Amino acid sequence: MFENVLDGELAACVSFTAEADKLKQVFRRTMLADGSRRENDAEHSWHLALMAAVFAKYAPEADAMKAMRMVVVHDLVEIYAGDTFAYDVQGNEGKAARELAAADRLFSLLPEDIGAGLRELWEEFDACLTPTALYAASLDRFSPLLNNHLTHGTTWIEGNVSAAQVMSRMEPIKKGLPALWPAVEEIIRDGVEKGYIREGD
Amino acid sequence: MFENVLDGELAACVSFTAEADKLKQVFRRTMLADGSRRENDAEHSWHLALMAAVFAKYAPEADAMKAMRMVVVHDLVEIYAGDTFAYDVQGNEGKAARELAAADRLFSLLPEDIGAGLRELWEEFDACLTPTALYAASLDRFSPLLNNHLTHGTTWIEGNVSAAQVMSRMEPIKKGLPALWPAVEEIIRDGVEKGYIREGD
Repeated sequence: MFENVLDGELAACVSFTAEADKLKQVFRRTMLADGSRRENDAEHSWHLALMAAVFAKYAPEADAMKAMRMVVVHDLVEIYAGDTFAYDVQGNEGKAARELAAADRLFSLLPEDIGAGLRELWEEFDACLTPTALYAASLDRFSPLLNNHLTHGTTWIEGNVSAAQVMSRMEPIKKGLPALWPAVEEIIRDGVEKGYIREGD
Repeated sequence: MFENVLDGELAACVSFTAEADKLKQVFRRTMLADGSRRENDAEHSWHLALMAAVFAKYAPEADAMKAMRMVVVHDLVEIYAGDTFAYDVQGNEGKAARELAAADRLFSLLPEDIGAGLRELWEEFDACLTPTALYAASLDRFSPLLNNHLTHGTTWIEGNVSAAQVMSRMEPIKKGLPALWPAVEEIIRDGVEKGYIREGD
């Protein structure tokens, strides 16, 4: 875009910016906190970026600013691969291959050094092994948990989700943001009590 | 929120996270790149955060990672103050006072050190004097310019906006991201040619 007036690499950055706009149209299962509609990947990614700044001091081993960059790019591949509901076993089967193909397509739109930098962030997030990635993953798990809690368990009920499934999904928080774990347990306890979450496995 | 299981400061961070969800419901004039609907402040802020990473090497004097934090918080006050259309002269008259009151209310929801940190970022962005703030402002100006270009000038036509007004609005880009300036000129030239932007003042 604007190859007539910009150098090729900068023009590629502008084209990528326009392409990235599509993340605003990838919708997740999670509802907004007031239950009025589902949230999309772009606003979800923003919410995590804000949380990365807010909760930083509770994750002293993580590089919170790197975690912010991670969450900004973590869902970009869904522009081509689509969102997969966390508790959809079948949908999650082909997810890794779909996202890998999407990453190849997406990051190659950028100049090589910039694309490689963003891809590295996404790969570190996806592997979920470093303290920074575990912190980023904790935010990515806690945010929809909180919104489910605030919207009377909408997506848990829709997915007939069990307490064990939610507990397992929240596992990264134990390592990445352990100070929040009591709130996770409280939300699950409350969800089971109110019938939003199935007891058991 | 969860004061029964979390310490007071952490509980305040969770409550702030829930409150911040409201930014997803503050709508701007700008359309998505495909023209299907207006964009909201949360997804707009995400888009700028991504751009802060992508265009970093074209703004060597700026701290691009700090600019990312800035754009993540730059519109938060609009949760209480609302969005004001850039070319709405009357609406912009009371804007500063409205946003100051909103900042007092919003950042005080957080523990003092965390709230002060986010507020500082917002203030630096708002003053628009440092290379980092100018870089962040450049992204904040270029993104809607690009989407207006991609959607056949929708909001320029709605606002009967002139070339001089757009040029003046884009001014920070000259200092904050000068490599993009030729694209700004090209977009304005094209907009005038196609009748999306009024010629003159």
